[in-house]
Amino acid sequence: MAMKVALLGCGVVGAEVVRLVNEQSTELSARIGTSLEIGGIAVRRLGRTRGTGLAPELFTTDAMSLVTRPDIDLVVEVIGGIEPARSLILAAVKSGKSVVTANKALLAEDGATIHAAARETGVDVYYEASVAGAIPLLRPLRDSLAGDRVHRVLGIVNGTTNFILDRMDTQGAGFAESLEEAQSLGYAEADPTADVEGFDAAAKAAILARLAFHTQRVTAADVHREGITDVSAGDIASAKAMGCVVKMLAICQRSEAGDSIGVRVHPVMLPREHPLATVNEAYNAVFVEAESAGKLMFYGAGAGGTPTASAILGDLVAVARNRLAATSVGEGGHDTGLPVHEVGQTVTRYHVALDVADRPGVLARVAEVFAGNGVSIKNVRQEGHGEDAQLVLVSHQAPDSALTATVEQLRALDMVRSVASVMRVEAFEGN
Amino acid sequence: MAMKVALLGCGVVGAEVVRLVNEQSTELSARIGTSLEIGGIAVRRLGRTRGTGLAPELFTTDAMSLVTRPDIDLVVEVIGGIEPARSLILAAVKSGKSVVTANKALLAEDGATIHAAARETGVDVYYEASVAGAIPLLRPLRDSLAGDRVHRVLGIVNGTTNFILDRMDTQGAGFAESLEEAQSLGYAEADPTADVEGFDAAAKAAILARLAFHTQRVTAADVHREGITDVSAGDIASAKAMGCVVKMLAICQRSEAGDSIGVRVHPVMLPREHPLATVNEAYNAVFVEAESAGKLMFYGAGAGGTPTASAILGDLVAVARNRLAATSVGEGGHDTGLPVHEVGQTVTRYHVALDVADRPGVLARVAEVFAGNGVSIKNVRQEGHGEDAQLVLVSHQAPDSALTATVEQLRALDMVRSVASVMRVEAFEGN
Repeated sequence: MAMKVALLGCGVVGAEVVRLVNEQSTELSARIGTSLEIGGIAVRRLGRTRGTGLAPELFTTDAMSLVTRPDIDLVVEVIGGIEPARSLILAAVKSGKSVVTANKALLAEDGATIHAAARETGVDVYYEASVAGAIPLLRPLRDSLAGDRVHRVLGIVNGTTNFILDRMDTQGAGFAESLEEAQSLGYAEADPTADVEGFDAAAKAAILARLAFHTQRVTAADVHREGITDVSAGDIASAKAMGCVVKMLAICQRSEAGDSIGVRVHPVMLPREHPLATVNEAYNAVFVEAESAGKLMFYGAGAGGTPTASAILGDLVAVARNRLAATSVGEGGHDTGLPVHEVGQTVTRYHVALDVADRPGVLARVAEVFAGNGVSIKNVRQEGHGEDAQLVLVSHQAPDSALTATVEQLRALDMVRSVASVMRVEAFEGN
Repeated sequence: MAMKVALLGCGVVGAEVVRLVNEQSTELSARIGTSLEIGGIAVRRLGRTRGTGLAPELFTTDAMSLVTRPDIDLVVEVIGGIEPARSLILAAVKSGKSVVTANKALLAEDGATIHAAARETGVDVYYEASVAGAIPLLRPLRDSLAGDRVHRVLGIVNGTTNFILDRMDTQGAGFAESLEEAQSLGYAEADPTADVEGFDAAAKAAILARLAFHTQRVTAADVHREGITDVSAGDIASAKAMGCVVKMLAICQRSEAGDSIGVRVHPVMLPREHPLATVNEAYNAVFVEAESAGKLMFYGAGAGGTPTASAILGDLVAVARNRLAATSVGEGGHDTGLPVHEVGQTVTRYHVALDVADRPGVLARVAEVFAGNGVSIKNVRQEGHGEDAQLVLVSHQAPDSALTATVEQLRALDMVRSVASVMRVEAFEGN
């Protein structure tokens, strides 16, 4: 007997899912042990079959009736957003259906509720497509590293911002110009806010942190978020001068003591030898540092209809097999409950470029401010420009709060004409 | 009730497994739903507890009795080699135990028998640690890409050869000198044959091909294998001149028609922009090209006691959970039976450097040989050296048999003093 799949949403990704389920039906049946059949598709408006080649009777606007229909076994949700996706997924789970979703916003906001409901009825909720598109990432984090301890996750999880920063780096273009190019190539939306302000990456960071540290507590609201709109050509040049590249990273990190985690999204300077530094264009990659496994990286296409559909199909095969074996994964049953600490407690290092008056005593005064906040200086470089000079400092590791206090005090100094660039530096060896 | 684990072998990896099972017992119990307990360890000679801190009574030389003991639930095999590992794993499987193994040689030679036995008794045989150490790779290939079609797998799966080639590339060192350095740093064995002649990589290639193409037919003997002992400083320089780097790759590729696969291990020239080209030192990485997912890469430590133990622990958690849910994965039940074609049928491109007499008509004669074999030339570069010249040609894609025939005929030409370098070139865009 075939397993019946209900599809919620039939845009680019949904139509690809239908195409792949139909085109690969023989292989999928062989891998699952039974065949898959599209049992219904919920859309907002009827009247088009969206090039799926499916009978018009399969389409409905009544999504709630579809997900609770007794003959439906599996539900694929690709409508996105919080509502009605949450109500539909919860209804599906409560009626005993397993769910595959690509909905990062919902999982980041309320994953704990959904996983708890799934555990209660013994069904699966899989969501590989929600982070880094086609890259098999969540399953390795959840399963392959189940016997390991993750220390840190560094991810390029937003293709739009990576494309923009890559263009700024390789072509010396400014932010506005690179954003325009990304838009004309379809890598950025007309309203790029979700990408360039880091909202998209923050949702993914919350999901990664939950999986990496086995804690249900993290939501998108817990993620410290800074966008890339202020990244200047000067920052990129400054990064180059110190052998770095600027990348927008999602960083999930266990505290030194191990009793809390930090989750943040912001541009960083990264050494060019780091594997993440070579990830160009709109590609995604996630770098994982684990106690036993060491350094791992997962790389691939982070978006696009077909890659996303591939991830959904992989999940669909898994939940169908689990259903056939009358088992489920029951994620979140083991909750370490690790709390999220404020960004101020995060240990990091800063790159600071100051436009200063070129006169005696400036460096001494600047160094005093660093020392006063308990921050030591790793590198300093000064370049004269007529009467002015630019002073570039890279700190040793220190709590973020000490570093921001340092920058605030520098900004207030008379001899500092302006703070030209402030950016965190990550993944340098040593402290 | 705790699940009892029997360990076969207690060398570097085995001792690490014991340490991690003990140190992380709380986390592991939470993730599995029950605790793990070392029920016995089979070793060749008694008298040492190998720094495991375990009671001497747990050690035995009677591995066969241990794996069939009724109270044992799971068996971890880290002795390696074909026998007695095969008999022990088969006995364990037949007594209803699930098995975790790192044994690439055995799986490459006789994986089909082992998977068939496991399916029959409904137990799991997991082997993430057998290829590319800690990198979560086999599970993503098997599960995450279950709804996709893999076209090609390109892997740096041997850390020793990657280290040697990286040294030759970055330091201009010769093969012998780089091998010596690898040996002094513990990256290469005193007898480096298994690594430098590609036997290790060939076993891993067979396992990768089986998983990627869902075929049980491939064994290490089916893998075309060439080592790196003939790679010269000249090859490396020639690669550099064309923007390439020399890497030892395992390549598993579906034929154009899709009805057979090619599996080979040999040095190749790879464009420096390719993500695999940036994998340095003894790191491993596997690059996967799939129809829907596009290009993926998995990167990490390919060897070492702790990384290998991490992969084993991940598998141990999975098989323990499956056992608790009374399910198993049953790999190999879906066998496409795709046959392996001869290397001659593989479509590739060659880089050929010839030392020739510098006189008129040489290029015409050489070009004629290419054309006579139906091979077209993509690039040609000539450099004079007094009376001699070096002629460097890169072909378009052609069957390997046509390319080898071309090289044979070039070798026989009077005006060709010697064939200085022949190497396949992979992952160039275009044909």
